[in-house]
Amino acid sequence: MYVVVNAAMSADGKLSTREREQVEISGPADFDRVDALRAESDAVMVGVGTVLADDPSLTVDGDARRERRRDAGKPENPARIVADSRVRTPTDARVLDDRAETYLLTSEAAPQDFVAEISEAGAEVVSAGEQQVDLPEALAQLEDRGIERLMVEGGGELIFSLFAADMVDELSTFVGPAVIGGWKAPTLADGDGFVDDFPELSLRDVERVDDGVLIRWDVP
Amino acid sequence: MYVVVNAAMSADGKLSTREREQVEISGPADFDRVDALRAESDAVMVGVGTVLADDPSLTVDGDARRERRRDAGKPENPARIVADSRVRTPTDARVLDDRAETYLLTSEAAPQDFVAEISEAGAEVVSAGEQQVDLPEALAQLEDRGIERLMVEGGGELIFSLFAADMVDELSTFVGPAVIGGWKAPTLADGDGFVDDFPELSLRDVERVDDGVLIRWDVP
Repeated sequence: MYVVVNAAMSADGKLSTREREQVEISGPADFDRVDALRAESDAVMVGVGTVLADDPSLTVDGDARRERRRDAGKPENPARIVADSRVRTPTDARVLDDRAETYLLTSEAAPQDFVAEISEAGAEVVSAGEQQVDLPEALAQLEDRGIERLMVEGGGELIFSLFAADMVDELSTFVGPAVIGGWKAPTLADGDGFVDDFPELSLRDVERVDDGVLIRWDVP
Repeated sequence: MYVVVNAAMSADGKLSTREREQVEISGPADFDRVDALRAESDAVMVGVGTVLADDPSLTVDGDARRERRRDAGKPENPARIVADSRVRTPTDARVLDDRAETYLLTSEAAPQDFVAEISEAGAEVVSAGEQQVDLPEALAQLEDRGIERLMVEGGGELIFSLFAADMVDELSTFVGPAVIGGWKAPTLADGDGFVDDFPELSLRDVERVDDGVLIRWDVP
């Protein structure tokens, strides 16, 4: 599986305010780039925190892009994946609408009635790990179901966990023209953080996009 | 006064690990750029957290640069400024050596015996504000003493406070090829953070430097 992490952050590395309120960081060119990335992916993944804060649909916006996917014999939209150890995704979340297939990655700590309810609401539940989602195992299960190219859109907890599990192949960050600040504000990579053996990146390219900067790193 | 904030951050916006351990983020070309920036400044400023964590000397490294300053009738090194509301700077900190003049910005909350001790150790104490340093007032006092061009090297608390006081003219960030992660790790702008009226930046230029990216923003 090839894993691309893509996120927009403020000039100081924040994904949103301390209140988890999204800030319009990027502009139309970056939105279009992100939409193209989604359309090229077999699945788009977020953590449950992102679902709770933003309720995204994670579908492809461009009609022509969805059509090209249909013409290629693929579903109109890539599958959606939510990492959600304890099933906190609301049953009326947009990721559960019928526009795409949705996988919920849970752990054995997920209450069985929640699992039943969310399955009823349309999610395909994949269980891996005891207290937390075991990401390598869960993604291996998804690869068996044909997901080869995975795009991860956040948040910082999931992105950190993927780096900690050494599962990221590419990191694209749009750095936008604003300062959000706040030691409690979510950043691109949260979690416990590294104190040694920091994941090293290799700069692929950098360019101006909208009023900010797009940096693309490979993870060797 | 013209205020330039300069800092190196990881690809995910961190200045150091959650343990405040510095990580070698930038390379020789960026070190040289930072040294040139120091040499062009009348003073170099940090918060006391940076003094406690890193014990920097904040002096100019290049002999030729110090010589050019002397030739221009300036002190060999720019003045050093520590924002330190309660005087937590140790009396044996490197910023207090005799290589440059040092200002300690404190508030009225600073214990008077600490103030006496740190003055004894060579710092020029500037008091402004009740509980916290009143940055606009303190910097106005420094401007009266001839400091026109100020370089700020961190940490995230001080940088946030300067943005909150609308005192930053330019922000340079070197974004390095590593992920540090950690919700407790210091970021480029910490403090309370903004929830609206985010400081807006204007992209001046972006270039590859060492194995990372240097982004320079103007603050209009």
